[in-house]
Amino acid sequence: MRVQVHLGERSYPIEIGHGLIGNAALLGPYIAGQQVAVVTNSTVAPLYLERLQQSFPDRCVVDVFVLDDGEQYKTLESYTAILDFLMQHRHNRSTTLVALGGGVVGDITGFVAATFQRGVNYIQIPTTLLAQVDSSVGGKTAVNHPRGKNMIGAFYQPVCVIADMDTLATLAEREFVAGLAEIYKYGVIWDAKFFDWLEDHVVDLRAKDAKVLQRAVQTSCEIKARVVAEDEREQGLRAILNYGHTFGHALETVTEYKQLLHGEAVAIGMVLAADCSERHGLIASGDAARIERALSAAGLPTRLPRGVGASAMFDAMGMDKKVVDGKLRLVLAERIGSVKIVDAVNTSAVLQTLGNER
Amino acid sequence: MRVQVHLGERSYPIEIGHGLIGNAALLGPYIAGQQVAVVTNSTVAPLYLERLQQSFPDRCVVDVFVLDDGEQYKTLESYTAILDFLMQHRHNRSTTLVALGGGVVGDITGFVAATFQRGVNYIQIPTTLLAQVDSSVGGKTAVNHPRGKNMIGAFYQPVCVIADMDTLATLAEREFVAGLAEIYKYGVIWDAKFFDWLEDHVVDLRAKDAKVLQRAVQTSCEIKARVVAEDEREQGLRAILNYGHTFGHALETVTEYKQLLHGEAVAIGMVLAADCSERHGLIASGDAARIERALSAAGLPTRLPRGVGASAMFDAMGMDKKVVDGKLRLVLAERIGSVKIVDAVNTSAVLQTLGNER
Repeated sequence: MRVQVHLGERSYPIEIGHGLIGNAALLGPYIAGQQVAVVTNSTVAPLYLERLQQSFPDRCVVDVFVLDDGEQYKTLESYTAILDFLMQHRHNRSTTLVALGGGVVGDITGFVAATFQRGVNYIQIPTTLLAQVDSSVGGKTAVNHPRGKNMIGAFYQPVCVIADMDTLATLAEREFVAGLAEIYKYGVIWDAKFFDWLEDHVVDLRAKDAKVLQRAVQTSCEIKARVVAEDEREQGLRAILNYGHTFGHALETVTEYKQLLHGEAVAIGMVLAADCSERHGLIASGDAARIERALSAAGLPTRLPRGVGASAMFDAMGMDKKVVDGKLRLVLAERIGSVKIVDAVNTSAVLQTLGNER
Repeated sequence: MRVQVHLGERSYPIEIGHGLIGNAALLGPYIAGQQVAVVTNSTVAPLYLERLQQSFPDRCVVDVFVLDDGEQYKTLESYTAILDFLMQHRHNRSTTLVALGGGVVGDITGFVAATFQRGVNYIQIPTTLLAQVDSSVGGKTAVNHPRGKNMIGAFYQPVCVIADMDTLATLAEREFVAGLAEIYKYGVIWDAKFFDWLEDHVVDLRAKDAKVLQRAVQTSCEIKARVVAEDEREQGLRAILNYGHTFGHALETVTEYKQLLHGEAVAIGMVLAADCSERHGLIASGDAARIERALSAAGLPTRLPRGVGASAMFDAMGMDKKVVDGKLRLVLAERIGSVKIVDAVNTSAVLQTLGNER
């Protein structure tokens, strides 16, 4: 099935289903020229690269760049290495980049596509749950800086997103569970009924029941597509997608991207954001607790790891993109299904949230 | 006086005149937040930085990054160094970058602005003739790759361009003359009467007569603004601005950006392009010769330097962004005042042009 992202001349489809990677008829129309460069990683390549390569039009010369697997490789160095590779293989402006992998591969490849020769086409083929429901959709591309996550990047939309649910079968359990965090986030920020449904179907979800999983992915993509269509460049509304992410990014920075998966950091960040929302007199205490219970039932961590101090977290939050003229801006929850952007949060409430020994 | 670049919500003015750098009333409205980062170079800083710094609103904290001067510093390394600097000084999404310098400073700063936190505001204050009439206008930002010029970049518009003609007084003669190449280019590609006028006023132009110079800059900006407004992202028409640039870029690559200024390479490129146009049965022989005479009278080089071989040039042209699916695309002249984009040029004509021992 297909979810459309409506962005005028930059509109594109998200194809969701099974057996899509080997589907040449699906992929073909999105390859304009004769050159293709696949960017993937060392985990995904042995699983899906061969199948993917059979789906390109015969006229194409296909070059493949394999990254090491992990968030610690989402750097300007990897970005530069891919640019060098494209130059070395004489790719030109009509080339098509294909990101085959999770969020790291998608984000870097998108940023390369945004800036190689001032912009070339790219296709997202997300192979993790997190990338399928979040990072592959909406055109946010980036690499990390040692001082902060996603600090360098661009808004640049793919020509299509192909979410092949088959890839979830080979996904490590921990990666799969991490992806659930972003799915629950859509419930918290936009759709209380979806949150209810997720609570009700958590067992099927964790068992990767095909129908339940596809509905979860589809609903997530629909919500994201709607938000992005209204505010592509995050001038306003789109910021709600960052719910839990200012805390989450700080946590990833403090732990140097090594200890937690992005989705795990976001799960903890969502719980911290709910606590902070409660301290701002917004969400009711019972609903904040319900968010934590739901994430925990999904198998996600919900508390700051031992050894992560409040002051280190607070400092790292100060470098987040959500800081506007010295004031920390946070997305806080009013209730399950509705959040708001708070422009100047109460910093002592944030410190209490971070130092809370619950 | 003011030339407006019409690009919908990305529209902006080019202010052209004298004493503009010290004009706080002019600059103030374009600074949105409380942070400013000036990027300049070691030649320009001692001349104009102090004057500029007095023009920022009192509320602003101003950080200054000084690049070494020269095209060889227009690299991913310099780009990364500026990003590190911004992160270190905790600049956020509401910062304003100010490019004070020539094309190198403007192009790098624009690319940093395009990608720092996925895009922040920037102001162009071009201090060379070339930057005033060309690179500061139109939102092309980039750095060079060892294998090709401007290979990495983005289309990203400034919030305003401030062309202070006073800066031309301190510009080295060779730099000034190099800037004339792009001015003559506008005559060749768009406006035969302007070309006539330039021929007639070459003495005053080279003597930096204020009135003549301002009219030349203004007309150049008007033509560029018009072309960019019709085709911001170079899907079609905008490519005519590249007249002489495929040859010129190749020449800069072959000579490793060290031997020739960009404008000088473009002047030689324009003459080569005219010769190649003639070989394609387009421009008349007399007009091709007239272009060379005019550029020569302006003090510009018009022939390939000794030691630059035809095959090295041809190879370097193959890496230019104008290559589309293996076919070399060139902008060729039909007559003075009119050019066309030729999609598959005759490569033996190109080789004859390059090997021509005139």
